[in-house]
Parts: sequence; C-alpha cells; structure tokens
Amino acid sequence: MKNPIGVFDSGIGGLTVVKQLKKIIPDEHLVYFGDTARIPYGTRSKNLIKQYALEDARFLLQYDIKMLVVACNTASSTALPYLQERLDIPVIGVVKPGAEASAKVTQNKKIGVIGTAATINSASYPEQIKKNISGVQVFNQACPLLVSLVEEGWLDTEVTRLTLLTYLDKMIKQEIDTLILGCTHYPLLRHTIQKIVGAHVRLIDSGEETARAVKKMLREKKMLNLSGRERDDKFIVSDNAQKFKEIGSTFLGYDIDHVEQVDFEEFLQTTVIKDV
Amino acid sequence: MKNPIGVFDSGIGGLTVVKQLKKIIPDEHLVYFGDTARIPYGTRSKNLIKQYALEDARFLLQYDIKMLVVACNTASSTALPYLQERLDIPVIGVVKPGAEASAKVTQNKKIGVIGTAATINSASYPEQIKKNISGVQVFNQACPLLVSLVEEGWLDTEVTRLTLLTYLDKMIKQEIDTLILGCTHYPLLRHTIQKIVGAHVRLIDSGEETARAVKKMLREKKMLNLSGRERDDKFIVSDNAQKFKEIGSTFLGYDIDHVEQVDFEEFLQTTVIKDV
Repeated sequence: MKNPIGVFDSGIGGLTVVKQLKKIIPDEHLVYFGDTARIPYGTRSKNLIKQYALEDARFLLQYDIKMLVVACNTASSTALPYLQERLDIPVIGVVKPGAEASAKVTQNKKIGVIGTAATINSASYPEQIKKNISGVQVFNQACPLLVSLVEEGWLDTEVTRLTLLTYLDKMIKQEIDTLILGCTHYPLLRHTIQKIVGAHVRLIDSGEETARAVKKMLREKKMLNLSGRERDDKFIVSDNAQKFKEIGSTFLGYDIDHVEQVDFEEFLQTTVIKDV
Repeated sequence: MKNPIGVFDSGIGGLTVVKQLKKIIPDEHLVYFGDTARIPYGTRSKNLIKQYALEDARFLLQYDIKMLVVACNTASSTALPYLQERLDIPVIGVVKPGAEASAKVTQNKKIGVIGTAATINSASYPEQIKKNISGVQVFNQACPLLVSLVEEGWLDTEVTRLTLLTYLDKMIKQEIDTLILGCTHYPLLRHTIQKIVGAHVRLIDSGEETARAVKKMLREKKMLNLSGRERDDKFIVSDNAQKFKEIGSTFLGYDIDHVEQVDFEEFLQTTVIKDV
C-alpha cells in the first residue's frame, strides 16, 4: 500500500519518532505535521489537547494517509481513544508501545516515567504498564523544564544536569531499574539522563518502541509499502518553517530539504471540526 | 470615563503589569485577557504574533474598553504599530515606557535588555532607547528558559541562578549599570537577578513604567475614571482557568476571585479577522 503514514506532533519533538520510523520501515512514505503555531501541548487543558489533536489529524487526512501516528506523548495520553473513535484509519500513539516495553525489561518492577505535566497528570503510562505486569511500582515525575532546555540546545550543561537531578532524585532513591522517556524531546537528553540515573537503569525511548509497533501493525494488516520509495517525505508546520528546518536535523539526524508552512487557521475555518 | 481598560498578554505574565496598574490607578476598571490557549508568543513568528495580538485586541473591544494595554513584551515589540493603525482607541505597549525609563536612569550609558527570543530579535528596545539618549550601548540577551523557570516556580533555585549567570555573564562583564526586565514574567525573578548583577545595577520593570504611562495618557486625554470603583475587574483566559487562578496570585500579589474561560476558537470564527 503506497499511501503515506501521517505523523503529527505539537512541534518538532515528533521528529525523534520519525527518526525511528525511517530506521525501522525505511520504504514507507511519511507526511509529518508539526503544530508549531500552538506548541506546547503539555501545559494545556485536556479538552484543548483533544481539540488540537483532532484538528491535526483532520489536516493529515487530506493527504490520504493509511494510518496515523500520534508522535506526541501529551496527545497520546489525552486524546488517543478520542481520535480512534473518530477516524476510520488505524491510529497508534507512543504511550502503549513505551509502556509495554518497560514492562518487558524491568526486573525489580520499579519503573520511572518522566513527561510533560499533561502526560503525567493523565496517568496514561502507569495505567498501560499495569495492564502488562502485576505488582509493579510506577514513579511519575512531570518535568516541564526539559522541553525548553532541549529547544535551547542545552543538552549537557550544568543547568541541565542540575535540573535532571532535581526531577529524578526521588525515583533514583526508589531504585528504579527502568525509566520511560515519556516525551519526544527527551531522547536528545538520553546521554545526560543515563549518566544521572546510572548505567544499570534501562532507558525506554517510546518513539523507538512505537516505530516497531507501527511496523507490526502494517504487516498484520497487509498495509506495508512493498513497491519501494517513490517520493520524498513531506514536512509541514503551522508556523516558523525556517526554525523547524534549522533545528530539525538535531532531532532527526539528517537535514530536511524542504519544510512547508500552511495557513493552518485558514484550513481550520474550512473544516467543520465541532461536528465530528 | 467609566469604561474599562483592556489589558492582554499571551498568558499570565501580564498580571505583573496589572499589579502595577492597580497600585498606580486603583480606581480604573480592568478587563484582562490571557491567551493561555496559545501561550507562549515569544518563540513564534512575527506574522503569527501580529495576528494573535489583533485577535486578542478585537476580543477585548467587545467590552467597550476605552484604551488597550499590551501587557506583553513580545506583542508590544512586534505588533504595536500594527494594532495602533487598526484600532480607534489609544494603545500602549510595555516597550516604550521601559526604554524611556532606562534612558533616564543610566549613568554610564550601558544598558542591558533581557527578554524572549521574539522581543530580542525585534530590536524594539535598542531602537526606542536610542530615540531617548545618544551614544548609548545596548546589550541584548534572549533568555528563553526564564519563562519556564518562573512558571515552574523555581524563582531562587541553584538552577535559576546558574541559568541567569549563563545569560547575563556577558553584559555583567560589559559593566551595564541598568537592566531592563523585558518580559512580564521577569519581575518575579527580580531579587535573584539583582543578586547576580549586583546592587549597583538599576533594574527597570517595564510593567511599572507602563502603568505610569497609562495614568499620564488617561489624565491628558481626560479619560480617568473619577467616579470611584463600581465593579470588580474581569479576568478572562482562553484555556486552563483553574491553573490561571491558582498561580495568578503569585504574579498579582492577591487572590483572583473569579476567572472566566471563553471558547476563543468560537469567538474567532464569528469575527472576520482577515479583513481588518
């Protein structure tokens, strides 16, 4: 099936998921939408996150996508069933794959989860983890500053180490052996986080697990693209295409040739979102 | 003139301006709009900031306001003339009053300015300062992390001190004697900033200067409210009224009784913004 896979995020973070998708299913065509005009989602209310997620999804449906990847932990935590009920194509979020992977690798059944305020408040990770493993202890910590630190490019500064130490101190003392990076920005802090929690703690990159889950689902549904690559991926944002292009390569590992900027407000006015 | 003054900000920061307005013109009625659904403005493109600012202004016009205060450095830097051309009421931003005050107090003509990326990139402060004083040197520094630190409540932690030291190091070495807090969040960091730059550096709170400028303009135009207070101020947000209410008192210095949440998207659909 040649149709592209739609991927959306509140901004640039979802590119760490794209990076994994490119590694694991390189023949698939992707259409990525980064809602940079309304980033961040992580501090917003539940209702607004749902509304934004549905609008993002509807925007991507224009590209005749065969499935949708919600490459944003906040939107996955808050809006996944809401999207699944409303769309006719398969929808995969990043929470379930990350939670399942953590349940598989933990040995002492002490798992840490870090993410935005909205992701942590939703309790989506503990809920999913407990479906996969019994007698587990999950330690949650919202880390609102980390996204800003990553976007500022302070990946391994003293400020970043100190901030991580403040956020992670409690779960380190609880002796977690597994830590879920529950925000698509956090893989960029992977090395710094690893140094702080110690080499014995397994870090779970939800994006990587999601890419595997996407491949599995496409194979099962016989929806993989078997005809090879015919065109480039598409990257679309709702604001600041230039900035996205500039810092995108840090998240993606390669340069993006072209980033399209849409007049998203105009698009929204042409769709009847409230009636869906 | 009994009509209220309209005040808007991208979110909660503008409350530091409200705090000063209440101190300086306590008899005036205020209608505050915090665009918490689309915060932050500071990292967005120029065009989008203009659009958002005009939408915010149009929203407040519904309340029959006699003047508009743009209590947001980013919007003041980027959209002030744009708003002034399009509205029939006086519009005051926070940049000009802050710039004028700094020109008055500096002795060695070395002024520092800190703000969001959009405010600093706009060069609005240096431009305004140079209109008021000749031979001045202005040292700019974008400080994207500070808003997140304030909203996290880390006002005087080691992380905050280290972050400020990183941002301010250069201008301290340049021996500035005046520093403009060019973002409405920064007055909350006032004490920490003062400790880092030293007691000899004068800090300029643009919000405080703006409140004075508002009083002056109202007096000159004979628009002051001389009939005393008759009703409460109004606080309206586009998302997360509860959070606004909870942390608002930190910015304002007193508790807010009631915060109204509007369906801003719905409001936008009823106005023909593109035609203004």
